[in-house]
Amino acid sequence: MTATSQVSRSELANAIRALSMDAVQKANSGHPGAPMGMAEIAESLWRGHLKHNPKNPLWADRDRFVLSNGHGSMLLYSLLHLTGYALPLDELKNFRQLHSKTAGHPEYGITPGVETTTGPLGQGLANAVGMALAERELRFAFNKKDFCIVDHFTYVFMGDGCLMEGISHEACSLAGTLGLGKLIGFYDDNGISIDGHVEGWFKDNTPMRFAAYGWHVIPNVDGHDVAQVDAAIKEAKSVTDKPSLICCKTVIGKGSPNKAGTHDVHGAPLGDKEIAATRESIGWKHAAFEIPKPIYDAWDATQKGEAIEAQWNATFTAYEKQFPELAAEFKRRMAGELPANFAGTVGALMAKVNEKGETVATRKASQIAIEGLAPVLPEFIGGSADLTGSNLTNWSGTKALTPTSGGNYIYYGVREFGMTAIANGIALHGGFIPYHATFLTFSDYSRNALRMAALMKIRNICVFTHDSIGLGEDGPTHQSVEHVSSLRLIPNMDVWRPCDTVEAAAAWTRAVQRKDGPTCLIFSRQNSAFQKRSAESLADVGRGGYILSEEGGRLKAVLIATGTEVPIAIEAQKLLAEEGIHARVVSMPSTFVFDKQDAAYRNEVLPRNVPRVAIEAGVTDYWRKYVGLEGVVIGIDTFGESAPAGVLYKHFGITADAVVKAVKSRV
Amino acid sequence: MTATSQVSRSELANAIRALSMDAVQKANSGHPGAPMGMAEIAESLWRGHLKHNPKNPLWADRDRFVLSNGHGSMLLYSLLHLTGYALPLDELKNFRQLHSKTAGHPEYGITPGVETTTGPLGQGLANAVGMALAERELRFAFNKKDFCIVDHFTYVFMGDGCLMEGISHEACSLAGTLGLGKLIGFYDDNGISIDGHVEGWFKDNTPMRFAAYGWHVIPNVDGHDVAQVDAAIKEAKSVTDKPSLICCKTVIGKGSPNKAGTHDVHGAPLGDKEIAATRESIGWKHAAFEIPKPIYDAWDATQKGEAIEAQWNATFTAYEKQFPELAAEFKRRMAGELPANFAGTVGALMAKVNEKGETVATRKASQIAIEGLAPVLPEFIGGSADLTGSNLTNWSGTKALTPTSGGNYIYYGVREFGMTAIANGIALHGGFIPYHATFLTFSDYSRNALRMAALMKIRNICVFTHDSIGLGEDGPTHQSVEHVSSLRLIPNMDVWRPCDTVEAAAAWTRAVQRKDGPTCLIFSRQNSAFQKRSAESLADVGRGGYILSEEGGRLKAVLIATGTEVPIAIEAQKLLAEEGIHARVVSMPSTFVFDKQDAAYRNEVLPRNVPRVAIEAGVTDYWRKYVGLEGVVIGIDTFGESAPAGVLYKHFGITADAVVKAVKSRV
Repeated sequence: MTATSQVSRSELANAIRALSMDAVQKANSGHPGAPMGMAEIAESLWRGHLKHNPKNPLWADRDRFVLSNGHGSMLLYSLLHLTGYALPLDELKNFRQLHSKTAGHPEYGITPGVETTTGPLGQGLANAVGMALAERELRFAFNKKDFCIVDHFTYVFMGDGCLMEGISHEACSLAGTLGLGKLIGFYDDNGISIDGHVEGWFKDNTPMRFAAYGWHVIPNVDGHDVAQVDAAIKEAKSVTDKPSLICCKTVIGKGSPNKAGTHDVHGAPLGDKEIAATRESIGWKHAAFEIPKPIYDAWDATQKGEAIEAQWNATFTAYEKQFPELAAEFKRRMAGELPANFAGTVGALMAKVNEKGETVATRKASQIAIEGLAPVLPEFIGGSADLTGSNLTNWSGTKALTPTSGGNYIYYGVREFGMTAIANGIALHGGFIPYHATFLTFSDYSRNALRMAALMKIRNICVFTHDSIGLGEDGPTHQSVEHVSSLRLIPNMDVWRPCDTVEAAAAWTRAVQRKDGPTCLIFSRQNSAFQKRSAESLADVGRGGYILSEEGGRLKAVLIATGTEVPIAIEAQKLLAEEGIHARVVSMPSTFVFDKQDAAYRNEVLPRNVPRVAIEAGVTDYWRKYVGLEGVVIGIDTFGESAPAGVLYKHFGITADAVVKAVKSRV
Repeated sequence: MTATSQVSRSELANAIRALSMDAVQKANSGHPGAPMGMAEIAESLWRGHLKHNPKNPLWADRDRFVLSNGHGSMLLYSLLHLTGYALPLDELKNFRQLHSKTAGHPEYGITPGVETTTGPLGQGLANAVGMALAERELRFAFNKKDFCIVDHFTYVFMGDGCLMEGISHEACSLAGTLGLGKLIGFYDDNGISIDGHVEGWFKDNTPMRFAAYGWHVIPNVDGHDVAQVDAAIKEAKSVTDKPSLICCKTVIGKGSPNKAGTHDVHGAPLGDKEIAATRESIGWKHAAFEIPKPIYDAWDATQKGEAIEAQWNATFTAYEKQFPELAAEFKRRMAGELPANFAGTVGALMAKVNEKGETVATRKASQIAIEGLAPVLPEFIGGSADLTGSNLTNWSGTKALTPTSGGNYIYYGVREFGMTAIANGIALHGGFIPYHATFLTFSDYSRNALRMAALMKIRNICVFTHDSIGLGEDGPTHQSVEHVSSLRLIPNMDVWRPCDTVEAAAAWTRAVQRKDGPTCLIFSRQNSAFQKRSAESLADVGRGGYILSEEGGRLKAVLIATGTEVPIAIEAQKLLAEEGIHARVVSMPSTFVFDKQDAAYRNEVLPRNVPRVAIEAGVTDYWRKYVGLEGVVIGIDTFGESAPAGVLYKHFGITADAVVKAVKSRV
C-alpha cells in the first residue's frame, strides 16, 4: 500500500523481524518465529489503526492490544520500542535478563504498553474478551449524545496454541453470545506448533467454528500482504454487533530462508549464520539493533498519539462541564479509587450484621455483605459460572448485562476458567471491580487464571462457595478438601474463609480495598453459628487472625479454626472449660493477612510454648505452619463422601469431641 | 416403535422417570430433571443398542457408557438397576447416603457398571474420548482376521454444561482430528442450565461447531421420539471414520406437568404434590419405587448380555488357540498386570544408570527411564501437550498413533486439561498405562483431571517438566513455585521430584507399579548433578525419603531437599563439614511414599530434636510439616523472574551459602 516518506512497508515490517531475531540471538533464548511471521499484520494494525499514545500508555480511551501468543514477546517489545514507548534499545538488548523491562513473556506492570501478562496460552484471548466487555459497559454507563468518551477497540493476536486451548472456546463462545463487536482477533494461522505441523493434532475448521459462535469471520487473509490485512481490519471495524476474527495465513519465521515454515524457528535463536542469511534474504542491510532514523520516524506514533489524546481531552473537558458528576465518577473509577462514602458504608454494614447476629450459611453472609456494599460501588460487576442461586452472588440491584443494554452482572455460563480470565481482563481494562463465583472445587478449573491475577497484582474477587464436606450429598467430586490450602500457596493470593456475617463483611471489605492483588472468598453451603465478639475482637477481625474467645483462665491450649469449624472450636472450648482446661479460640479467616501483621501481634494471638490445635475441614499439612510438629491438626486427608453434611462431620471426626481429645493429648 | 410383550416403550422410559424422581424425593437432594428429560434416549440406547453384560460388568469388550452430565446420576442408577446390575432397589432408596452405592454423582469403583466418576462437567466427555481411543488402539494391537476380540462403541451423554466447558473443545477437537468413529455422543439439548434458559449465555450453533471439528453430526433429533433416536443411533454406528454427535432436543424434567422445561426441575426434588401430578400426567400408576414385573422383564438385559459375552468368549477361546501369546498379553494388559520381566527390566535400568552416573537434566533422566522401561511395556501410551521435545517424553520406540494405524504416542496438541482427562479415560478403559506431559506450571490447567484420577484411584502418569525457576528466561508465567507443594495436597496423589537418573528411574518404576492411583513426576529443565549412593541408600530410594549422605560425625542438623536442590544440600553439607558441623542430607523425592513408611524408619531418617533445614525452590509453607516451627525452609514465596537459571538461584537465595547460614542459625 502506501509508503511513509522513503520507507517501504516491508522495511517497516522487517524492522520487527530484525529486532526480534537479534534480541533472541543476544539472549540466546526466546521465540523469533511468531514475531517474524506476524510482522506485516502488526505493521498494518499498529501503524494504520491502533489508537494509542506512547507518551501516555495509560490513557483511558486507548485501544487495547493483547498478544495472547505471549511467547512472541519480541513482537510486542519491537512495536513498543519503534512506536515511541519508554522502552529504549538497551532494554531490547537486555531481553530476558534479570530486572529488564523485556521479560521472556510480556508482563503487565513492568513494561509500559503491556496491557496484560501473557504466555499461558488462551488466557490473553479471554482477557481481551473482558477488556472488550468492560469497554462496552463503560460506553453504556458514561457516553452521552455527542460525548463519546469511551470508544475503543480491543485487538488480540493468537496462534494455534491459543485456539487449541479450551479457554478459547469458553471465552469466544461467550463473546459471540454477548455480541462484543469491538473485539477483533487475528488468528496467526501458520500451521506450526512446537511439536511440528499441526495437521496431526489440530484440524479444526476454525472459521466455521467461530461462525458457530456467532462471530464475524474474515477467512483466507494473506498475513504477509499488508493491503489484505488492512482491508480486513477495516471490514472488522465496520461490523459492530459481532466480534470479528481475521484469519491470516502466515509463514512462521518468515524471512528466514532455511528455517521459515518449520518449528525450528519457534522457540530457539536462529543462529548467526541464519540471521545473516535472513538479512540478505529480506534486504535488511543494517547491523544488529540498528534501526535507521527514517524507519524510526515512520514508526513513531507519538505525535499522532498525542493529537488523538488531545482531541479526547477536549471532548472530556466539555463532557466534564456538562456532566460534572459523571466525569468525576469516570475519573474515580478509572483510577481504581473507592467512593468517598465507602468507609461509611462499611461501618454501617458491620454495625448492622453485628447487631443482627444472624446465623446463616456463610454464602448467605456473603450475599448480605454484597447487598451492603454494592449500592455504593457501581464499579462492581458480578457474575457466576451458572450457579447464581447457589453462590448467592446476586443482590437486589443485580441487572444482567446484554448485548444492547448495560448491567452489572454477567451470566458466564459453565465456564470457570474463561470467567476468571475474562474478569482479569475487566480488571485490567479499568473502571470495574469484578467478582465472580463457582463452587470451590471448581476453582481447579480456573486455577491458572487465579495465579495470573496474583502475578499481575490485579483486583479480582473470586467467590467460591460450597466449601468442603459441608455441601453434603453431591459427594467427593464436589467436596473441596485440598482447595483452601492449595489456594493459600499461590503467592500474593489473599484467601478468606469467614465463619459468619461479621467475618464475611470484613472479608468483602478487604477484597474491595485491596488494590494490589486478587482475593479468594470461601463460603459454606450450610449454616455457621454467629459469633458474639468483644469490641476488641471486632476491631481485630480485619487482621486476618484474632482472639475470638479468650481462655478465661490460665491458658492451656490455643484452638485455631476457620469458617464453619469456628463454632466447633467454640463448642470444644466450652467442653474443655467444664473440665477446667482453659483454651483460647483464634479465628483465622485469612492466613495471608495474619502473616503480614507485626510479630508482637502474632505472638500475642499465638503465644509460644502453648499447645495448638488447628481445625479445618480440609487437608492438614498446611496447618503445621501454625501448630508445628507437636500440635494437632483436625482435618481430612482423604476425599469426602456423598451424604448429608451432619453425617459427614461425624464420619470424618470433625467434632468438638475430637478437638477436646486432641487438646487433652497435648496438655 | 415395537413394544416388548405388553409393555410400551413409553412405560419403560417412565420407569426411569419414576425411579429418579422418587429417589431424589426420598433423599431430599439430587437432580431429577436430566434423568426425566433423557429417559427416551436412554431407553433407546440401553435397550436397543448397548452391548454389555450386567452379570459381568467388567467384561472386556462391553460398550462403554459415560454420563458426562453426572448430576443426572439417577438416570444411570435407574438403568443399572433395571437392566440387572447388582444395584438393588434398596440402594436406590438410599440415594446419596453414606456408604450407599448410589452416591450423589456416579463414582467409579463403587457402583458396578459405572465406568468413570463424573460430575465436574466436561470431563466425562473427555474420558469417553480416551476410552474410544483405547478401544481403537487395542483393535490395532490385537484383532486378527476373523478374530474381532475388541470391537465396541463408547457412548456419552452430555448437556449444555459439558458443552460450555473448555475441555469439551479440547477433547472433541482432538477426537475429530483422530477420527474416532466408534465414539457416539448424545447432546441433551434442553436449553436449560442452572441459571435458567441458556440463550443469555450460550448461543453456539453446536452442530456447526462439531462439524468444524470433523464430526459426523446428526442434528434436530426429537429426544422424546424413540424411533428418531433409534434411527440416529443406527446412522451414527454406520459412520466409522468420524465420531458422531446426535443432537437431541429434549424437555428437562419431561413428564412433570408444572415444572418441565424450567430450571426448577434441575437440582431439587419435585415435591410430593408435583410427583403425584407427574404420575398422573405420564400415566404411571405404581407406588414409589414400585416397578411391575413386566417392566423389569422388559428391561432385563442379563440374558442378552450373557449370550453376547458367551459368543465373545467362544471367539476369544478360538483366538487363544491360534494366537496364544497375543491372547495372554491381552488378558494381562486388561487385568492391569505388569509383564513377568518387569522386575528384571527395572533392575537392569537401575544398575545401568547407577553405574553410568550421568549428570543430566532430570527431564533427560526421565527420558532415560522411559527408554529403559518402555520396551517391555507395550501398554505404555505416551504423549505431550505439544512439548515433546521439551518434556522428553518420546523414546526410541515412539510411534505416533494416527486414524489409520496404531501407535504408542499421542500428539495431544496444546490441550493440557483434555489430555489428562483423555488419559484418565484410557486408563479406565484398560489395556494401557497412559503417561503424558506438559510444563509443571500448566498442571494448573489440568488440575481437576489430576484430582479425578486420584479420586478414582487410577494409574495415570503425569509428567511435568521445567519445574521452578530453573527453567530460566521464560519467566514467572512459566516458573512453578507453588505447584509441587500444591499437587502434594491432593489426596491419593503421589508426587515425585527426583534429583538424578537413579531417583528418576525409581520414580518411574513406582509410578508404573502403582495400581491404585496417579503419580506426578516432576522434572527439571536444567542439569542436576548425579549423586553417588551407598548400597543402603540405593535400596532406600524407593521409600520416598532416605539418607542420601551420612553426617560423618556427631549429627548437628538434617538437610532435607528434593530435585535440583539436592546437589545444593550436598554442597552445603561439605561447607558445613569444613567448619566441623556435621549435617545429614536427606533426599525426599516423594513425601507421599515417605509418609507411608513405618515410624521407626521415618524417625531414623529424621531423628527428633535435631534442627532441620528444608531446601526446595518453591513455596515454603508445606515444609513446616517436616521442619516444624523451629526449623528453616529455604525456598521462594514470591513469583519468579525472567533471567538465566543460575542468576535466579542466586537472586532468590537458593544457595549452599544460604543453607549454611540457616544451619548455623539453629545449631
